[in-house]
Amino acid sequence: MKLLLKNVILNGEKKDILIEKDRIKKIGKNLDLRAEEKIDGKGEKAALPGLINCHTHAAMTLFRGYADDFPLKVWLEEKIWPLERKLTEDDAYWGTKLAILEMLKTGTTSFNDMYWSAETELVAAREMGIRAKIGLVLLDFSPIGSKEYVEKIFNCQKDKTREPVTLTISPHSIYTVSKENLIWAKNFAEKNKLLLHIHLSETEKEVKDCLRKHKLRPVEYLDKIGFLSQNCLLVHSIWLSDREIKIIGERKSSVVYCPCSNMKLASGIFPYQKLKGAKVNICLGTDGAASNNNLDLFEEMKFASLLQKVAEKDPTAAPALEICETAAKNGAKALKINAGEIKEGKLADIILIDLNEICLTPGNNLISDLVYSCSGYCVSDVICNGKILMREKKIAGEEEIKREAIKRADNLKKKRRKL
Amino acid sequence: MKLLLKNVILNGEKKDILIEKDRIKKIGKNLDLRAEEKIDGKGEKAALPGLINCHTHAAMTLFRGYADDFPLKVWLEEKIWPLERKLTEDDAYWGTKLAILEMLKTGTTSFNDMYWSAETELVAAREMGIRAKIGLVLLDFSPIGSKEYVEKIFNCQKDKTREPVTLTISPHSIYTVSKENLIWAKNFAEKNKLLLHIHLSETEKEVKDCLRKHKLRPVEYLDKIGFLSQNCLLVHSIWLSDREIKIIGERKSSVVYCPCSNMKLASGIFPYQKLKGAKVNICLGTDGAASNNNLDLFEEMKFASLLQKVAEKDPTAAPALEICETAAKNGAKALKINAGEIKEGKLADIILIDLNEICLTPGNNLISDLVYSCSGYCVSDVICNGKILMREKKIAGEEEIKREAIKRADNLKKKRRKL
Repeated sequence: MKLLLKNVILNGEKKDILIEKDRIKKIGKNLDLRAEEKIDGKGEKAALPGLINCHTHAAMTLFRGYADDFPLKVWLEEKIWPLERKLTEDDAYWGTKLAILEMLKTGTTSFNDMYWSAETELVAAREMGIRAKIGLVLLDFSPIGSKEYVEKIFNCQKDKTREPVTLTISPHSIYTVSKENLIWAKNFAEKNKLLLHIHLSETEKEVKDCLRKHKLRPVEYLDKIGFLSQNCLLVHSIWLSDREIKIIGERKSSVVYCPCSNMKLASGIFPYQKLKGAKVNICLGTDGAASNNNLDLFEEMKFASLLQKVAEKDPTAAPALEICETAAKNGAKALKINAGEIKEGKLADIILIDLNEICLTPGNNLISDLVYSCSGYCVSDVICNGKILMREKKIAGEEEIKREAIKRADNLKKKRRKL
Repeated sequence: MKLLLKNVILNGEKKDILIEKDRIKKIGKNLDLRAEEKIDGKGEKAALPGLINCHTHAAMTLFRGYADDFPLKVWLEEKIWPLERKLTEDDAYWGTKLAILEMLKTGTTSFNDMYWSAETELVAAREMGIRAKIGLVLLDFSPIGSKEYVEKIFNCQKDKTREPVTLTISPHSIYTVSKENLIWAKNFAEKNKLLLHIHLSETEKEVKDCLRKHKLRPVEYLDKIGFLSQNCLLVHSIWLSDREIKIIGERKSSVVYCPCSNMKLASGIFPYQKLKGAKVNICLGTDGAASNNNLDLFEEMKFASLLQKVAEKDPTAAPALEICETAAKNGAKALKINAGEIKEGKLADIILIDLNEICLTPGNNLISDLVYSCSGYCVSDVICNGKILMREKKIAGEEEIKREAIKRADNLKKKRRKL
């Protein structure tokens, strides 16, 4: 299967991009080549690498707007957890589909997920055609978070290494997973060539508790038990000492910045400049829709930059181009996928931007406009793994997904009211 | 002229809204009334008051993306001012039209403007049908910012009190307008029943300079010269002492919170909670597109809330409903327009929200979704002053405005390069 993108703007020039199977085969001017499928950008669409969401909880999109403006403890213990206990596999399936629909519509072609319903999420992601890393969650206090359960699920997946959807091992956090299980996770991930995906140092309390229990700060603790490597995605990473930042840099782990969630839950401010100083790979994540409340990485880029500028009292901090890289190139590096850039030989994960959108008018600077002015609505077409998943803002099955998701969310609330 | 909005969701119920001339005449269920025009929401569109942008520089939309990530001094003195010196009335006209197009598309029906080209902006706003307060700018170092010039322009406007577009007096700031001229502005505004619109305490430097020059902080200084009243909109109001907040509360002046601009220029964090504590009327503004970089009040609402949550370390700060009020009801109060709410007798400034948009799915909470999940793209129809300005996301003349604005922005950059 060949797909030809004609007359798209790439780095300021009108180019053609030939895609063969899942790869970018050739980039040039006026490519005179045959292809089964074609999209003509007519010089009015820019081609960008598909964005990469390095941390979300897809199924929780069903909870969007369900509980906002509450203190963290109330939000989690009285609102989210009771609802999650009512969530069926069928709910998780439609919640995940809704999340993927939203991500594709707003230009995300890869996501890194952590949720209870890994098996269901695998099915939903494969059906939708998006690239995904689905986390098998470890969590001490639940039977479906045990290492036995994770191992069982892992072993019974026939297609577990078939791109574009594969698995990761996701210990929830250092305060919900024992040292023994963290070490098991690390060994299991190493043996099976899987990434490790963990929440880390999201709140100040987590650091204090860790100091009390282990006489070490969270990163020091993880390093001591040999957990850290370039296979790790450390999500949030807000409350870090200079020494911890140095350790992360040396171990070459990636950190995931989730500005909207960090602001909305009042978790704190991600130490972007210091991490950058230590040459740490910084990626971007939306977190789940229950704490954001959308999955739009364009909006996330603006928050990512503006929060750093005001926190550092420096309008030159976290400039647009650098932030674009956190949402694409750096994410690809962290997830070890050969994407995040439009180059021959890379995976064909490409989004087209409609340059006629008002957020891109008058068009003084494309990168500035994308980061500071646009929402994900500027995306017109999405290609993932060489396949067209969205064309002129239309995705097959969109109405059904929305309808079914609404039904499940309504049922969940009814069940909740009956408690 | 009568306009009937059928089957729109208003406060959770399906209602009809009858508009006669510029007013909301009647609200009820199944209104069986004749009307020349009709919009049927089919139970799938929610009606909200049109949003009110209390501070912008419309014509500067032409500069969107032209200069980002620079230190404030470089941004202003080396980038923005030299470009402004090249700006013709024709440029300002198309820049203003582009701004109004963007505001209407994202659900703003009123805006409060401050820019050089008041006469041109008046024309553009009247042509587009939006409600606007156009500022006559006072600025000591420019002949077109003199009181004589302002008075001349004011006097030659035949329609200056004809709604929906009227004038304000806009002294640029305390550091660019002399005490004498500030007092003149205040008296002129009082005599002619105009609002006063001024930048205030945007940077810490402004406060320090004021203390050095006047031995008073900015609000104390303005109060001493009798400037403050309920006719004032004090824009930014970031660096305020407790005493200044108390004075603003006593004088019943309104303050305008511009979170994106404040973050992007690293100006500081607006003291929302303290101003709320003093019962000050807090409104919302986007500032100009050169420092935001869009005019979307939906996005601004999310920034307004999330910035307060993280700054106050409190996830319950600036909750969704309160932030909605800053963008509608409070703005109407500040601008003294009988709008900002959908009630019989109010001006018919109404926007319809397409509830099928993914940012509103599954629809657990409309207000939460609007503030935390949506961008202005969820707006489908706009009615201002009783007239339909946008229908199913289409505005008459949109393509021409974008085309002409692009032409002017390109010319400006060419002129700039020749310097």
